[in-house]
Amino acid sequence: MLSRVDVNELPTPALVVHASTLGRNLATMARTHPGARLRPHVKAHKCTALAHMQRNFHPGFTCATVRETVGLARVGLGDDLLLANEVVDPARLAELASLTSLGARVTIAVDSTVTIDAAAAAGLRECVIDVNVGMPRCGCALEDAGRLADHARRSGLGVRGVMGYEGHLVLVDDRSLRESAVEGAMRLLLDAHDAVGGELVTAGGTGTSDVNTWATEIQAGSYALMDTKYATLGLPFELALCVVATVVSVSAGGTVASGGWAVSDAGLKSFGMDHGDPAIEDAIVWACSDEHTIFSAHTTRTPRVGDRIRMWPAHIDPTVAYHERMYVVDDTDTVIDEWSVDLRGW
Amino acid sequence: MLSRVDVNELPTPALVVHASTLGRNLATMARTHPGARLRPHVKAHKCTALAHMQRNFHPGFTCATVRETVGLARVGLGDDLLLANEVVDPARLAELASLTSLGARVTIAVDSTVTIDAAAAAGLRECVIDVNVGMPRCGCALEDAGRLADHARRSGLGVRGVMGYEGHLVLVDDRSLRESAVEGAMRLLLDAHDAVGGELVTAGGTGTSDVNTWATEIQAGSYALMDTKYATLGLPFELALCVVATVVSVSAGGTVASGGWAVSDAGLKSFGMDHGDPAIEDAIVWACSDEHTIFSAHTTRTPRVGDRIRMWPAHIDPTVAYHERMYVVDDTDTVIDEWSVDLRGW
Repeated sequence: MLSRVDVNELPTPALVVHASTLGRNLATMARTHPGARLRPHVKAHKCTALAHMQRNFHPGFTCATVRETVGLARVGLGDDLLLANEVVDPARLAELASLTSLGARVTIAVDSTVTIDAAAAAGLRECVIDVNVGMPRCGCALEDAGRLADHARRSGLGVRGVMGYEGHLVLVDDRSLRESAVEGAMRLLLDAHDAVGGELVTAGGTGTSDVNTWATEIQAGSYALMDTKYATLGLPFELALCVVATVVSVSAGGTVASGGWAVSDAGLKSFGMDHGDPAIEDAIVWACSDEHTIFSAHTTRTPRVGDRIRMWPAHIDPTVAYHERMYVVDDTDTVIDEWSVDLRGW
Repeated sequence: MLSRVDVNELPTPALVVHASTLGRNLATMARTHPGARLRPHVKAHKCTALAHMQRNFHPGFTCATVRETVGLARVGLGDDLLLANEVVDPARLAELASLTSLGARVTIAVDSTVTIDAAAAAGLRECVIDVNVGMPRCGCALEDAGRLADHARRSGLGVRGVMGYEGHLVLVDDRSLRESAVEGAMRLLLDAHDAVGGELVTAGGTGTSDVNTWATEIQAGSYALMDTKYATLGLPFELALCVVATVVSVSAGGTVASGGWAVSDAGLKSFGMDHGDPAIEDAIVWACSDEHTIFSAHTTRTPRVGDRIRMWPAHIDPTVAYHERMYVVDDTDTVIDEWSVDLRGW
């Protein structure tokens, strides 16, 4: 680490985490979802340094990829890892099974006899039955859940319960509508649980964490760093991550009033774009290209070449996945740490 | 390298390059744009191994970032590097200037007195004047080009000519419309060149490489690997890169006819999404989430869990930037090489 670097001296584009805001987000979630009520999803940040902070509040983690699972186990965070995804590759499954040698407990999602047989053959020990609760993605039909649980147990796998992801509901912005829709999805999951058994009913995400009282644990990830899409839901979490960029070009004054625009050096290779363009305070964002974002400032203050600006991602997960590291800053905008995004890739 | 690995044995998602197709794309472009008529843009592939192949045909390269420029110089590909982007960070500019110690020639785009002064102060030696030819991004106004060239020369920079990027026209799908629009943009650039001087009129991209006869050199990058968006333009280049993925879940039969769907393990963290969803042959793609793509097969052949499929990106540049490596396969789908995507990041 360099000493006493100001955020505005970083090479750009730079992924920057505001330490106090992150700390508040983690504490806020831990108050409403203490201990095992939350199983933080690391896919949103892909960073073991941040996971270590979450481990102070919660015993287990949710992962989306083999690499996330392996990476957590290797840094001693493997007490209770749920790979909330189906895997059929024998080599990757064997890698997961070998994590027991590190003292890790790995539970994998299964939704078919093929995924159950592959997990059992590789030596994995525990699974959850992934159930479709309304979003057409992975997950078995409700009526197959009990049969698959029986098949898993016969194959030598412990069945810890059921998993369902109401991902189609996490961005419903009317809270009462979100609550009733989540209840419907979770009633399905509880019906599946009746057929499956086990101690876990694992579900949810940041967007339903405030209303999902049916699951035994919530798989929220975005709450830690947040993004502009989730920020529209009125949740008690604040934006903790931005991309600091440099203005490299200004045309015709750079403001809306002047009919001009400015260009920053962070473009669509710095941001996941599936939820739309990043936001810039007090500016209209016109477009992103590979390494540029074009915007016009709302104020009469003309943007200048060399200015540093903060850009706020619309979707945190695919944004972080583009970056090698994130810089952590304190309330004086001094860089106090540098975290590797060490869980990216597959 | 593992020996005799079949493409279907790779861990997924895997970025896969078809060697013969890539070879044909490179040769086809080199026939119409031999030698210095093309300055291949490495931003599309971010891979020095692929750049080494392009170096067999063309002496120089175009870069979008400092890291791309430094990376090419370090592997001995620095004979004539154009950083086609504005940079104002003194430390990054000093890094570029130091590349002369590796025998590299670095030319940087400038479009303001600030960027000129920063480049000169850092010890860079050569620049091109970046001119706005119709796309509101970087580039000075036509009427400022001569003044900036004078300023650059007074600051000690050699001025090699002008640069303009008709990026707003590269995806115009009617060829004659594209041609006339490009002519208009290039007339502006030639007017700027009259005021600036120098040997270079550098412009263009894959989408205008067939019609831009006004520039002295074309900055095409996508032609090497291609994507489904560029494939709609009727250019003589074929899709050479896909993401090989594994089907991890199948519901209700997985086909359009059955009203079902299947899920692959490559999602929006494997693909740049700004040009839309990736394509899967003989299937409808419904949606991508972080690590999944949901699709329905058109045929009556049911997708099965464990099947390998090929997914074709809509935008090559931000797709490659998510991956650590690309696997190169021959016509028998045997993996014959593994290339690091060693120019990603900034």
